[in-house]
Amino acid sequence: MAEELSAIGIDDIKAELRKILSKRRYVHSLGVAGEAEKLARRYGADPAKAYLAGLVHDCAKEYPPEEMETILKTEYGVAVDSMSRIMPKILHGPLGACDAQRKFGIYDPEILDAVKYHTTGKGGMRLLTKIIYIADYIEPNRDFDGVEKLREMAYDNIDEAIIHGIDETIKDLIRRGLVIHPDTMHARNDLIMKRE
Amino acid sequence: MAEELSAIGIDDIKAELRKILSKRRYVHSLGVAGEAEKLARRYGADPAKAYLAGLVHDCAKEYPPEEMETILKTEYGVAVDSMSRIMPKILHGPLGACDAQRKFGIYDPEILDAVKYHTTGKGGMRLLTKIIYIADYIEPNRDFDGVEKLREMAYDNIDEAIIHGIDETIKDLIRRGLVIHPDTMHARNDLIMKRE
Repeated sequence: MAEELSAIGIDDIKAELRKILSKRRYVHSLGVAGEAEKLARRYGADPAKAYLAGLVHDCAKEYPPEEMETILKTEYGVAVDSMSRIMPKILHGPLGACDAQRKFGIYDPEILDAVKYHTTGKGGMRLLTKIIYIADYIEPNRDFDGVEKLREMAYDNIDEAIIHGIDETIKDLIRRGLVIHPDTMHARNDLIMKRE
Repeated sequence: MAEELSAIGIDDIKAELRKILSKRRYVHSLGVAGEAEKLARRYGADPAKAYLAGLVHDCAKEYPPEEMETILKTEYGVAVDSMSRIMPKILHGPLGACDAQRKFGIYDPEILDAVKYHTTGKGGMRLLTKIIYIADYIEPNRDFDGVEKLREMAYDNIDEAIIHGIDETIKDLIRRGLVIHPDTMHARNDLIMKRE
């Protein structure tokens, strides 16, 4: 079923990811795929789309960060905002969505949106985008203080889990003196406003 | 000298503020005025403008928050964003800038900008706006953990002091589960980007 979502089959996508990603990141990608599939079943999203989106979400993560902007511009004609320019790693989301089309023939807009915004989030996230955002945080290979609580929360109320995830991300950015991407703030504000 | 900045004299402005503000807030306003004047001397801004901006910055703080949007709309024709609607207290800045014109005849754009953005901050703050933002945080009546350190920082490097103030504000909003105004995030990002 997932095969229909991409021009090349899942096994070939996995073979390609094994080539372009480190072992650790490939294992993480399988973890996100499996977690996203489970979350999709819990929330009534398409499990095959969720699995595929999770599998490819980090497909552009191992480009040298300083080359990401150039690749986006010259190969895909995609402009880069000033915020992303000073934290270029964040571009692996948008670049991954472009590569997923070209390398794997994935054109499903829900999958591409989920890949594009999996690090920053955004205001008005779709269900699949929410699923990949939080699956990336809680997949079985993740280990940090509070991960078990966040896993429970993700299956209980995905919006609250995302707010919590963003809160931790923002606190970490503050500790490190880094900028906060506007999409991250919009994602959080949007979910909080819908809660009220 | 400050008299020229407003249609009515400083003493009359003070008399009016004593009428419309609680004792505690009036004392706070005098504190911000004095602190802002000192900061202006430190950073080469106009001390009289700084004093006046500090004096009137909270002139709209004691309207009932639920009436602020209506007053802005009906009396001043000013539209209110959805973010401010769910935390209406934030509107005392924009409303204060309108009232400062009408009640006190203050038309200086630097003073009005400083009053308008003294709570949220904004991207690309002018010097006087920075001064009022941080003077509001550190004026002599303020007492909180770390206030002495922040006072030193404000006279050493006003941008770093503002980043620190915003960091504390954001952490407090996260603790309380409240939205973060986009202007606050833009203020912080802008100062951090200029640092690098």
